[in-house]
Amino acid sequence: MAGSTKDIDALIELMARLPGLGPRSARRAVLHLIRKRALLLTPLADLMGQVAATARECLNCGNVGTSDICDICTDERRATGELCVVEDVADLWAMERSGVFKGRYHVLGGTLSALDGVGPDELRIPRLADRVTAEAISEVILALNATIDGQTTAHYIADQLGGRVRLTSLAQGVPIGGELDYLDDGTISAAMRARKEL
Amino acid sequence: MAGSTKDIDALIELMARLPGLGPRSARRAVLHLIRKRALLLTPLADLMGQVAATARECLNCGNVGTSDICDICTDERRATGELCVVEDVADLWAMERSGVFKGRYHVLGGTLSALDGVGPDELRIPRLADRVTAEAISEVILALNATIDGQTTAHYIADQLGGRVRLTSLAQGVPIGGELDYLDDGTISAAMRARKEL
Repeated sequence: MAGSTKDIDALIELMARLPGLGPRSARRAVLHLIRKRALLLTPLADLMGQVAATARECLNCGNVGTSDICDICTDERRATGELCVVEDVADLWAMERSGVFKGRYHVLGGTLSALDGVGPDELRIPRLADRVTAEAISEVILALNATIDGQTTAHYIADQLGGRVRLTSLAQGVPIGGELDYLDDGTISAAMRARKEL
Repeated sequence: MAGSTKDIDALIELMARLPGLGPRSARRAVLHLIRKRALLLTPLADLMGQVAATARECLNCGNVGTSDICDICTDERRATGELCVVEDVADLWAMERSGVFKGRYHVLGGTLSALDGVGPDELRIPRLADRVTAEAISEVILALNATIDGQTTAHYIADQLGGRVRLTSLAQGVPIGGELDYLDDGTISAAMRARKEL
């Protein structure tokens, strides 16, 4: 673009590659950054450099952190014998925000997918079996997405660990605040089958 | 958040302040950045640092660039005697993308607004009058937004420059690809009043 310069154009192009931003919103974001240089652009540049230098995957569970073993895996209070299996780090963060789970996690890094050529060895499934033994796990909670691939992966893991440990999965049903009228048939069927005594 | 670490949390918080991103999309963006560290995060950090160090407003027209006088103001081929007045840099970039204007720009940096206490001296209006004389401008094109504040500002500028130079403004009417059914009454009225002979 003739109106700006090489660096600014390159910055807009990179920002446009972020999920949730396109060329137009990247331009808006970059102009905003330049206007708030001291408050936003400089700190952001520094932090990104720092995170780029230090961020790594936890060797134990696959969580993202700044050390080889993440904060959750080093926290002894979280050695409750419960292990929550999630697809990726975003899911781990979502579980942590809910604050309901006090044990440790295992991030698979995806789901089994024959079409995409993702087998058990591409995920952290062998490592999961090792951890169940090494960390004296009593319960493995499968918190995988309620998609075909997620459920296939859950079945495979259940097959691998069957008998060695108690296996559970998240309940399926009507979400809090959900209206029946807007729910799909599958969710309503699942909620009906899993109905509870009052 | 317990699941990540201080730097990553701080990065998410800063990213969430960008226009178009909220806390949720900032988390997605940061995870994406960490996954594509070499391709995206490191180059982005470097570029942001560079832009933070070099970006500045053109002393002449208010465009954003990396030198005291921007590329457009230094380009002799753009000394056509036409000066296009826009509200802010995003508007200048939009005009440049259309490629229709070959002259120079003047970025006001906002619009007159009694409510927000923005007077002519807060904008680059005195500088505009100086440029009209100094750069031998023959036509000033007011490309301000078709809002109340934009039009108030246009009237004020017309008042200041009246008689010294030819003053024009962008045409108002049906946008290309627009359907009458979806247009507001004001636009249809303006298009009708400004109808053209075929």
